[in-house]
Amino acid sequence: MVTDSDDAPPTESPIRSELRRVPSLVVVNTGDGKGKSTAAFGIALRALGREWRVRVIQFLKSGDWKTGEEEMLTRLGAEWWSAGDGFTWDSTDMESSKQLAIVAWRSAAETLRTGSHELLVLDEITYAMTWGWISTDEVVDAISNRAPTVSVVLTGRNAPGAIVDIADTVTTMVDTKHAYHAGIAAKRGIDY
Amino acid sequence: MVTDSDDAPPTESPIRSELRRVPSLVVVNTGDGKGKSTAAFGIALRALGREWRVRVIQFLKSGDWKTGEEEMLTRLGAEWWSAGDGFTWDSTDMESSKQLAIVAWRSAAETLRTGSHELLVLDEITYAMTWGWISTDEVVDAISNRAPTVSVVLTGRNAPGAIVDIADTVTTMVDTKHAYHAGIAAKRGIDY
Repeated sequence: MVTDSDDAPPTESPIRSELRRVPSLVVVNTGDGKGKSTAAFGIALRALGREWRVRVIQFLKSGDWKTGEEEMLTRLGAEWWSAGDGFTWDSTDMESSKQLAIVAWRSAAETLRTGSHELLVLDEITYAMTWGWISTDEVVDAISNRAPTVSVVLTGRNAPGAIVDIADTVTTMVDTKHAYHAGIAAKRGIDY
Repeated sequence: MVTDSDDAPPTESPIRSELRRVPSLVVVNTGDGKGKSTAAFGIALRALGREWRVRVIQFLKSGDWKTGEEEMLTRLGAEWWSAGDGFTWDSTDMESSKQLAIVAWRSAAETLRTGSHELLVLDEITYAMTWGWISTDEVVDAISNRAPTVSVVLTGRNAPGAIVDIADTVTTMVDTKHAYHAGIAAKRGIDY
């Protein structure tokens, strides 16, 4: 809610009065930078604060630890499904990850169709599309024809153009500086 | 934890083995796009999942409603301080917002000095610096000399260069597409 003003605080509300309300939104967090999934979980947190029914589906997950965000969002009542539980970089496991992503997508499509939740987070779903594991056309179709009360957040690099087209809001996270490139390991509590 | 590969899944872990661990990190979320604060709250969520002591200071806040994220993070044990409670676009209130931001910064500096929390979120602090309400040099100094276990997340547009310099990770959120520009109002549960 802050305007573009650089040097001085704004002196009037930047909020336009003629805005229309919509029953749900499609949000995409993409780009190579950090914060795509983190911001999606932040939205889940906010939605839970508004007593929405929240469902998170993680299409990829490296390692089998339970993350801090899963722990907390589950405690607050979110339904959480990690398609990639046990995901490793081994190619045999890769085939099983693919199968799990396909099953996860079917379940996601069901949520979109039935409107069983007010928020559906499809975390790292772009990879499943980019790698041809699930059909981008099918995802676009299911989101376009979803129950009108289901807001959707999609995350991952290289969001397909057709997904950007149907989104209301697309943010590209750009890696301006990254601890990793300075040789610093991911930190528990901050990064996972 | 996913590599840059566009067309096929990665076949080996991209995690480098020679990375060093640090006691804390400084993270900056800047840029004109959405998700800066949301991702910061996502980190707070994660940190709470790791049983960190978390403190959130909001340097600006338009309106006096309690947001979904404040509701939830407080319930999970975060300490929350909104400097701008009751913030409006009126110029008299602006002076009081400035005073509140100054007081909030003093309190933040105390947390940095004592190490009373493992995570300190300084939400929208960049505006307080840009508008000259608080001294960027002082912020840089307090963060550089902080208790080593305090991780810090700073958010807001136009992060000063001196802040970027001392940060470990800086993500610039770029507004690729925004519901607002299509005339769609901010949505409770998603945007606040």
